[in-house]
Amino acid sequence: MNGKVYLVGAGPGDPELLTLKALRLLRNADAVLHDDLVAPEILNLIPSTAQVHNVGKRCGKKKILQGEINFLMIALAASGLQVVRLKGGDPLIFGRAGEEIEALRRNNIPFEIVPGVTSALGAAAVAQMPLTHRRASDALVLITAHRAAGSGNQQYDGADWSKLAGSGATLVIYMPGQNYAEIAKRLRAAGLAAETPCAIISRATTKYQRTHRTTVSDLHRAPQLAAPTLLVVGQVVRLADPAAVVEGFALAGSLPEDKLSPATSFETVPFPARTMGADEEGRA
Amino acid sequence: MNGKVYLVGAGPGDPELLTLKALRLLRNADAVLHDDLVAPEILNLIPSTAQVHNVGKRCGKKKILQGEINFLMIALAASGLQVVRLKGGDPLIFGRAGEEIEALRRNNIPFEIVPGVTSALGAAAVAQMPLTHRRASDALVLITAHRAAGSGNQQYDGADWSKLAGSGATLVIYMPGQNYAEIAKRLRAAGLAAETPCAIISRATTKYQRTHRTTVSDLHRAPQLAAPTLLVVGQVVRLADPAAVVEGFALAGSLPEDKLSPATSFETVPFPARTMGADEEGRA
Repeated sequence: MNGKVYLVGAGPGDPELLTLKALRLLRNADAVLHDDLVAPEILNLIPSTAQVHNVGKRCGKKKILQGEINFLMIALAASGLQVVRLKGGDPLIFGRAGEEIEALRRNNIPFEIVPGVTSALGAAAVAQMPLTHRRASDALVLITAHRAAGSGNQQYDGADWSKLAGSGATLVIYMPGQNYAEIAKRLRAAGLAAETPCAIISRATTKYQRTHRTTVSDLHRAPQLAAPTLLVVGQVVRLADPAAVVEGFALAGSLPEDKLSPATSFETVPFPARTMGADEEGRA
Repeated sequence: MNGKVYLVGAGPGDPELLTLKALRLLRNADAVLHDDLVAPEILNLIPSTAQVHNVGKRCGKKKILQGEINFLMIALAASGLQVVRLKGGDPLIFGRAGEEIEALRRNNIPFEIVPGVTSALGAAAVAQMPLTHRRASDALVLITAHRAAGSGNQQYDGADWSKLAGSGATLVIYMPGQNYAEIAKRLRAAGLAAETPCAIISRATTKYQRTHRTTVSDLHRAPQLAAPTLLVVGQVVRLADPAAVVEGFALAGSLPEDKLSPATSFETVPFPARTMGADEEGRA
């Protein structure tokens, strides 16, 4: 049998949010190389006959270099194994799959990409918050808080954070880190109003998930929730389920407690919360 | 049994890209309300005992209004049924789930959101193209080509298309429609160079999938591929698999045919296509 590499998205955390294809490939894998962020319940699906390598770069005591991951992946496939390279969320968003794809092509290793549910979608689902809305946002920006600076990159400056943040689109900031004060400063500099709503969603779709809602002006006071976290910024955050505010974190801003029941929460949105009439045409 | 509504993402097309949870819910559904874009192979998974309603708004002879969809969904759940509201891709991106969530909350119908693989991720996977890349794009924008204009919206103008398009981020334009000349004009107006690479990906992850690669300046000459299509704009398109160019559509621009083999295609990228060395630290 010829070796092959599958770059597979493991989804946001909940094992039931794996795709059918990801499950099939995991069950048939000879070797799995996974990131730190992949949930233990998902790793338990790997057959005991398979080699399993944690190639996570975040939390390991020993740093694993991207070149070493590429080398291992290619060596295993070249020896005829079915290799699953398992990444949290989707492999093509903030997963450095581009560099792995280049290495696989250079070495003529057959490969396939299996998309997954990216973390932003898992977080929004548990917060019951649309990421686009006809009356609140018609675009979505996925971005990280940090820059690629220091990565030996002379020719690419990065996308214009200020234009993206100031566009009026929903922003989902992956890997926001702990420096919320700095992020708030950059959001204000991009023109966002102090009262723009935000939500920090920690470990979405797992039993440990927590959500904290706040505003740009109060973001610096937000608690440090367990990684991985996502920061969602924009008017759609007002549409989140108030019951998703957990662990006693109060809803920041001016909403009185009696506005928090699901039945009335939409009275608090700044855009017209009128009832959708049957005379309005759907425009998906 | 108490009725409940599940807003479920069906993924980009391939039935194997359903999540395990989506499959379980479909198999246990009493009623399914689905969009036009959901693949027949997925609808075949619904048990014959379930009611199935096509509530698609695009291609039906009779227009179905959003209010009618909400009414049907609520009436079925209120009568005690397990209702799956099945949407192409992910329900929270360009799916009008926000309005359905509001209607469900107003009527105190229990509901849950099950995220799916959004179309952009399916399209990028089949084109073997990262959506972010350390040397090409550190942000991703999901946007539609049209405006919400005419939808009775006085208070929301929409995100700033020009800022988003001109930010340097990868753009994925959902529902680009047929007027590529107009889109190209808007992209140029936002400051994109004429030679910025683009890809139109039609019916990604299905057996009918087709990809056409071009540039902003040649976009107006692109063929009309079958819906649903996505338009991807940005430097990451240069990293797509040249083999994904099918059906005799030539790769537009200045790449000679002999540059199209996977082994050499990276010579054509404008940023340094240098080999990743083992001395470089991974920074996912």
